[in-house]
Amino acid sequence: MDAETRAEILEATNRALCEHGYAGLTVQRIAEESSVTSAAIHYHFDTKEELLNAFLDDRIERFESKLSCGASDPRKRLDAVLDAVFNPEDPDVDGFPVALMELKAQAPYHELFRERFLDLDDVMRGTVADIVRDGVETGAFDEADPAEIARLVTTMSNGAHARAVALDEHPAETRRVVEDALELHLGWTPGAEVER
Amino acid sequence: MDAETRAEILEATNRALCEHGYAGLTVQRIAEESSVTSAAIHYHFDTKEELLNAFLDDRIERFESKLSCGASDPRKRLDAVLDAVFNPEDPDVDGFPVALMELKAQAPYHELFRERFLDLDDVMRGTVADIVRDGVETGAFDEADPAEIARLVTTMSNGAHARAVALDEHPAETRRVVEDALELHLGWTPGAEVER
Repeated sequence: MDAETRAEILEATNRALCEHGYAGLTVQRIAEESSVTSAAIHYHFDTKEELLNAFLDDRIERFESKLSCGASDPRKRLDAVLDAVFNPEDPDVDGFPVALMELKAQAPYHELFRERFLDLDDVMRGTVADIVRDGVETGAFDEADPAEIARLVTTMSNGAHARAVALDEHPAETRRVVEDALELHLGWTPGAEVER
Repeated sequence: MDAETRAEILEATNRALCEHGYAGLTVQRIAEESSVTSAAIHYHFDTKEELLNAFLDDRIERFESKLSCGASDPRKRLDAVLDAVFNPEDPDVDGFPVALMELKAQAPYHELFRERFLDLDDVMRGTVADIVRDGVETGAFDEADPAEIARLVTTMSNGAHARAVALDEHPAETRRVVEDALELHLGWTPGAEVER
């Protein structure tokens, strides 16, 4: 299928998923959100699972691009990760966090979903670990285990996501705690001006 | 209703929920898991929401009793909390973590569920904050903000729960990271022998 049709189907999937939830998601409802017919959606994606797999893949790519910033300084790069994770531009856009939580709850029943969430986890932990490794090497951070810091930040972001959905709490509440822990681990105050 | 009937209905709810998930949970299926009739369940609980509210309430009470231990030493009490949260006796018993994740995803649509998850959060954060406050007072821990430590441990436990469901990861992976962070915050090594 051409990239444009694919993008349109995935955007419509996002809207339908946010509006009707996982249980209420049907190809008919996705078609209603787009100019693509039900028949065309069925043609491109054999099952709802395949469609949602492609949808998750697309979201992971977007998230990956948000995690990276143009800066080379590890402190600026870590700040950019914290921004992307704990202060997303539109935390409640279209109820996406709720839909994502439903898909996580479905992972035990859908191997494809589980694989995508494992991919997402790899992307996030890999990004943070790379930054910490660079920062320790250049002396921007104190000696620290990159894999452990990556696990700390990622698990706190998983927790912040669950709290946003279950408790209606803004992820920035979690950010404060992560920043204090990073200060102890890395000897660096997140958000502080980077000296030149 | 008598306490025994109530307990039986709630146990049957747990089994039905773990087996069929939130979307597949019906009073008929709960009745099949118990000696109580559908009519009797309907009589005691007007709606599925009310029944699940009582179910969550019951689970929170059980969790609260697991969080507390007989010891008075704050270090032993904090170890007991970490055991209860990150090394539950049966982490996968009846698929309960998956069912709980589904209910969290439903919280935005059910005010009663949200209230129960807020209760659970209060219980857990309150327990950890009390322990840290006592430990700082007695000198078992370094100076630390009890509310912040409580938020760290609780959010990591929320993250560990999501990871167990979405990634099939044992919560003990998260415990290591929490313990290292607690060591930096409190100057105490979790699990270390308590000196007399």
